[in-house]
Amino acid sequence: MKKTFALGVDMGATTIKAGAVTPEGKILEQVSVETLANKGPATVLKQIGEAVRQLLARRKPVDCFGIGIGSPGVVTVHDGAVHNPPNFSNWNDVQVAKAIRKVIPLPVFIENDANCAAIAEAKYGSGVDHKDFLFVIWGTGVGGGIILDRKIYRGPYGGAGEVGHVSIDYNGRRCNCGSLGCIEAYIGQRYLSQRTKEILESSPPDRPRSKIKELVGGNLDKIEPSVISLAAEQGDEEAIGILEEAGELLGCALASVLNTVDLRVVVIGGGVSAAPQFVFDKIESSTRERVLTPHRAGIRILRAKLGNPAGIIGAASLVL
Amino acid sequence: MKKTFALGVDMGATTIKAGAVTPEGKILEQVSVETLANKGPATVLKQIGEAVRQLLARRKPVDCFGIGIGSPGVVTVHDGAVHNPPNFSNWNDVQVAKAIRKVIPLPVFIENDANCAAIAEAKYGSGVDHKDFLFVIWGTGVGGGIILDRKIYRGPYGGAGEVGHVSIDYNGRRCNCGSLGCIEAYIGQRYLSQRTKEILESSPPDRPRSKIKELVGGNLDKIEPSVISLAAEQGDEEAIGILEEAGELLGCALASVLNTVDLRVVVIGGGVSAAPQFVFDKIESSTRERVLTPHRAGIRILRAKLGNPAGIIGAASLVL
Repeated sequence: MKKTFALGVDMGATTIKAGAVTPEGKILEQVSVETLANKGPATVLKQIGEAVRQLLARRKPVDCFGIGIGSPGVVTVHDGAVHNPPNFSNWNDVQVAKAIRKVIPLPVFIENDANCAAIAEAKYGSGVDHKDFLFVIWGTGVGGGIILDRKIYRGPYGGAGEVGHVSIDYNGRRCNCGSLGCIEAYIGQRYLSQRTKEILESSPPDRPRSKIKELVGGNLDKIEPSVISLAAEQGDEEAIGILEEAGELLGCALASVLNTVDLRVVVIGGGVSAAPQFVFDKIESSTRERVLTPHRAGIRILRAKLGNPAGIIGAASLVL
Repeated sequence: MKKTFALGVDMGATTIKAGAVTPEGKILEQVSVETLANKGPATVLKQIGEAVRQLLARRKPVDCFGIGIGSPGVVTVHDGAVHNPPNFSNWNDVQVAKAIRKVIPLPVFIENDANCAAIAEAKYGSGVDHKDFLFVIWGTGVGGGIILDRKIYRGPYGGAGEVGHVSIDYNGRRCNCGSLGCIEAYIGQRYLSQRTKEILESSPPDRPRSKIKELVGGNLDKIEPSVISLAAEQGDEEAIGILEEAGELLGCALASVLNTVDLRVVVIGGGVSAAPQFVFDKIESSTRERVLTPHRAGIRILRAKLGNPAGIIGAASLVL
């Protein structure tokens, strides 16, 4: 009998999302369960099994190609192990693929989550016309994946594409990773919100009413990138300035990466990538001004196409 | 009859150096001719031919595997063309390999010069024990090459490894390339000398006698990295400070690259890499402090082993 779908599992720190995905990249159905990451690896593995079983109960297991899992942290593809995923308790090195195979008799593949999203964009999203590109996830943190000749480049240790930790200032902001000036420390969701708060707190009292302040009802702790984007779309100058600056800085980091890896196209996904088009224009102009001359004309900064389901689709496509 | 050597041609902007190289990486003999880069491509091609003929006149041409050429600029390996090498007049796109093949009936291969040096270090130098590493040329400019699984990574456009144009400050020094804050603009030979001059000019009159000033007989325009290194070895604090700062900054750029490409070993060659060991120690500590945790313990910053002949040996090894 002809197999018709694969299961893709997106193993987030809060929620495990899983879906049955066709070879054309269409999600047939989707479930989600809590990750319970604070309860340790055994519980998380049980939750993955639960999500998989819920999906297999609704479709014929014999029609399933196998299971692909996208995980945070460093993933060693050859042994299916996940190493030190951030925000998972008591988790050093866990053989996730092996554990799932033990309880579900299907092929299991596993890959870093940013790499999964990159693969999804390469196969079904904004990357289909580009055989080589850099994928960037711009959300809580800043991550990425490198697609070379339509395949993911993992690097010798499985950690390639960590573009969030490209420094744009050797003496700059302290990043969570311990280094200085990482681009993530300037444009990651939390930092961007914090910076906006600081700017609003220090803005002169005579400036026109802030749309951002209005949108959060005066509670500056409620600022997040979607609010900044909304205010910018309504013409708020501070919001526009903050997002333009973020675009300018991201362009600096991207230029360093493109010069090194020899790429010209960047696809940007993740929560913050819902920003208005002028932000993408700014990223593109900043990148173009900063890369070496031979790259300039070819620079393209594209918005990811698949949105949140990219994680599930990319994970499934490890099998497809 | 068994072939015994290949010719390696290092096409510098001032001098073309060529050598007959054994499969073990030993240079049997060497010649050099002027490049005459200001006279245009036809003259340069004639000069390459001249260097090759001088070598072939001294050995049996039938024993020669072929000719490898290392060239500055972007090299497209598939058609053997060299694009816009800096400091070569009237040179846009020139089919160097084809032109040499026309006049000398041997196989001809061509590759970027930094890549050639990287290949030489991988096959015969400090990289022999490392299947993946970043090679950096630290000289007039800062260039590089990426070795993955013992092979050069060229990138989709043949321009990979331009680590001199990784920015360490989005609002920093203007680089020759037009961008801001490129590491080359802080540690390239000219900038390093200029910065030293500025520091000496602004140093307080009551500080102890400068070894650097002594070594250049008071003429600060004569400062170059070898002088700074010598002064540092003699204990001059300003010289030590300048070189330590250079190491610190280079470590910042390297961390960005290693995080992105997923590498842990860096081999540094080029003129300035003759710097004292404490500079390498500083580069290593700076890189280690700045890379992501999983890389830290594995970080190794090694001095290149082959020195200047790396260009010739690497070029020859394109054929071997």
